[in-house]
Amino acid sequence: MTAAARLRPRAAQDLPARLARSAAATGHGHHLRTEDVPGWLARRARAHRFAVRRTPLDRLDGWSFQPNGGDLVHHSGRFFSVRGLAATVDEGPFTSWRQPVIHQPEVGVLGILAKEFDGVLHFLMQAKMEPGNPNLLQLSPTVQATRSNYQRVHRGAGVRYLEYFADPARGRVLTDSLQSEHGSWFYRKSNRNTLVETTADVEPHADFRWLTLGQLGELLRLDHVVNMDARTVLACFPMPAPEPGALHSDTELLSWFTAERARHDVDVRLVPLAGVDGWERDADGIGRPDGRYFRITGVTVEAGNREVTGWSQPLLEPCGTGVAAFVYRRIGGVPHVLVHAKVEAGYLDTIELAPTVQCTPGNWDPVRAEQRPPFLDLVLAAAGRGDAHYAVEHSEEGGRFLEARIRYLFVAGDEETAPLEPPPAYRWVSVGQLNSLTAHGHYVNVQARTLLACLTSGAVRL
Amino acid sequence: MTAAARLRPRAAQDLPARLARSAAATGHGHHLRTEDVPGWLARRARAHRFAVRRTPLDRLDGWSFQPNGGDLVHHSGRFFSVRGLAATVDEGPFTSWRQPVIHQPEVGVLGILAKEFDGVLHFLMQAKMEPGNPNLLQLSPTVQATRSNYQRVHRGAGVRYLEYFADPARGRVLTDSLQSEHGSWFYRKSNRNTLVETTADVEPHADFRWLTLGQLGELLRLDHVVNMDARTVLACFPMPAPEPGALHSDTELLSWFTAERARHDVDVRLVPLAGVDGWERDADGIGRPDGRYFRITGVTVEAGNREVTGWSQPLLEPCGTGVAAFVYRRIGGVPHVLVHAKVEAGYLDTIELAPTVQCTPGNWDPVRAEQRPPFLDLVLAAAGRGDAHYAVEHSEEGGRFLEARIRYLFVAGDEETAPLEPPPAYRWVSVGQLNSLTAHGHYVNVQARTLLACLTSGAVRL
Repeated sequence: MTAAARLRPRAAQDLPARLARSAAATGHGHHLRTEDVPGWLARRARAHRFAVRRTPLDRLDGWSFQPNGGDLVHHSGRFFSVRGLAATVDEGPFTSWRQPVIHQPEVGVLGILAKEFDGVLHFLMQAKMEPGNPNLLQLSPTVQATRSNYQRVHRGAGVRYLEYFADPARGRVLTDSLQSEHGSWFYRKSNRNTLVETTADVEPHADFRWLTLGQLGELLRLDHVVNMDARTVLACFPMPAPEPGALHSDTELLSWFTAERARHDVDVRLVPLAGVDGWERDADGIGRPDGRYFRITGVTVEAGNREVTGWSQPLLEPCGTGVAAFVYRRIGGVPHVLVHAKVEAGYLDTIELAPTVQCTPGNWDPVRAEQRPPFLDLVLAAAGRGDAHYAVEHSEEGGRFLEARIRYLFVAGDEETAPLEPPPAYRWVSVGQLNSLTAHGHYVNVQARTLLACLTSGAVRL
Repeated sequence: MTAAARLRPRAAQDLPARLARSAAATGHGHHLRTEDVPGWLARRARAHRFAVRRTPLDRLDGWSFQPNGGDLVHHSGRFFSVRGLAATVDEGPFTSWRQPVIHQPEVGVLGILAKEFDGVLHFLMQAKMEPGNPNLLQLSPTVQATRSNYQRVHRGAGVRYLEYFADPARGRVLTDSLQSEHGSWFYRKSNRNTLVETTADVEPHADFRWLTLGQLGELLRLDHVVNMDARTVLACFPMPAPEPGALHSDTELLSWFTAERARHDVDVRLVPLAGVDGWERDADGIGRPDGRYFRITGVTVEAGNREVTGWSQPLLEPCGTGVAAFVYRRIGGVPHVLVHAKVEAGYLDTIELAPTVQCTPGNWDPVRAEQRPPFLDLVLAAAGRGDAHYAVEHSEEGGRFLEARIRYLFVAGDEETAPLEPPPAYRWVSVGQLNSLTAHGHYVNVQARTLLACLTSGAVRL
């Protein structure tokens, strides 16, 4: 082998086109019709017969409040803990507060395995139960593994198909980045989002099915079918970039982002859960007397067959259904969405790019009109008229959140409702620009990634 | 104006070629010969007549040790503070320690202003005094400003040329990213690194001169002439990318980086300075009885003319001259350097890409041979033989560090000394790959950026 033969092209030029071909494959894949997927999920649910019931926090098996500070922890020190967070920020109606927060410093892996059938990329999706999901079973990535799983893989940890992600030599990595999760509920949580292609024979399993990207797009038009972990990985799939340009060049966009990240004073630290003013513990959980934001509650999972044992755990239960919406426009014929450089206390670094609107409307009822989130009324009005281009309810990470429902929307804007020169923390970005930022971590937040997954998969065309 | 007319190309295709043309302009620029720059710096030093003398920490004007915890702070609460840091990491000979650290949460701006003369880009460089520089005055960016300076600009803060960086509409941003600084000495410090082009007439000033990129490359071959702030901005200048490929594709490189960042357990927190075991305060400063790592010491600056008043401040004084070296090889004809995914306690997120070797050799004398940094002996041997491709001493941030000298080297490797399959935390990257990562923050550390500046400016050709 000569030294010259060792060089590889820096970019896989054909990948976006191969993904676009898979996105165009709708109706059926090599193995399954799209319309049969919900029935298959229902059959897997019956096969496993999971039952989830609410359980007071002080009766969760293996969990307890620490004597010093009252943090809610597992006796093994593993999984995650519920701690307190104290935040001071420099803008907005709330500049200083304390809250419970989920602390899970370990980075996990969300991995989708890809393989070509008949020349079209298919993705191996799992029918996975998570206790917080409204319908328990949803389509998840091939692998959702904690780092402990991941590092134990050679000692046989039992997470199916993990070997494709633990050993890069077994396949070809198509994308792999560290992406953040909910900045209002997690303290600096991130996971690897990775897509690996194999050409090997992959052993089938009853809980897994190969689907095209187009089929996943069709399923994203249904409520509560594609789970959050799958959506965030899908958002990172590289899209074809036929855009002739954008309202702002990539450098202008990065410069604006840099300025937004640099200008904020955000001071956040972990504090003892017992020291979180304004939150109270009652028989069932931890919440606020005013009923806002969320509660910390507990569940016990019982499995009806012999393969899986039960467990109990705390979950964070949001109060009310959220809204996450991109206002969009075609600019010079190129689809753009309006991103918001949003401060959330749990981010690693001050801001990330959020949807135009991201909030739980009920939390804003008592706030003065001029302090309500910009564009919220535009989005709610369009949704109320049935006028949104896309309006589907998805749920967030069912392993940590209980019934965390968010209504995801795309709403058309025009120069009057959403001008090309928007308020300072907002900026128009082309769909291609938003997608390319997911090659790196901590740019595009998790709610924006759900909306982006609708675009990479073809569920939504703007 | 039609909507189509609003689109801009996502990338400025001509910029790398324009920078390459400026890098090729050596010997003289439009205003000054390169050989006259050291004389000009010396004249500016005489014009200002600064004097710096060492001062015990308890006699620094405006600075004091806080009664609770002993942090060293300025009475205004501004500038920076010296605090304690407690770190636990999962690898290496030292897995748990405490140390003093500089805490400066505010993000500053390092900005270079560019302008074409005779069709060649020139860069406006300042002759700037910093008390920790071995020779006091060095070439610095057009602007080094704290965020307080920056945000006060419209109220007349007095930082010359700051308006070009505070108001994007006054010029064209060519690069702008948040870059980290020394992870062993700072707690999570980062600055904006930005390059802005103007076509306007720029008012001249005696402390500023326009130089080509090629001239800056020539000056980077001299010890202690181009300061750290200038070097880190230069590293981010986009290079032409004529590389036919690289040993690893960009996706493989990012995937390896993601895995390295995800696999480490790094637990770091600020603690009171008084609680830093192993460090002692004596009449002059804070240091270790074994004389290792660094000392916290103080200086008073006196200005000999009427324009500037004096001040005093603490500085961090490293013990011994450091080494930062890239081992390089041509692979398939394309220059590659061997990067190290290095854990440093002060990084925002576990690791950044460091030079192949980055350490102060004296600190490693008492450590067992098998725990010495890989490639250190290769680099020291080449330096000892006078066999390095580049070996120049530069100093680090003279506003925070006192005589922080690092010997920067490029040392050739081959399959025997530096194989294409290196140890796990090391990876070969092409020069173009390393340069393109500087478009984003927290990939390439500050020492690697000094070496990269030698490549972007043409000081070194591999």
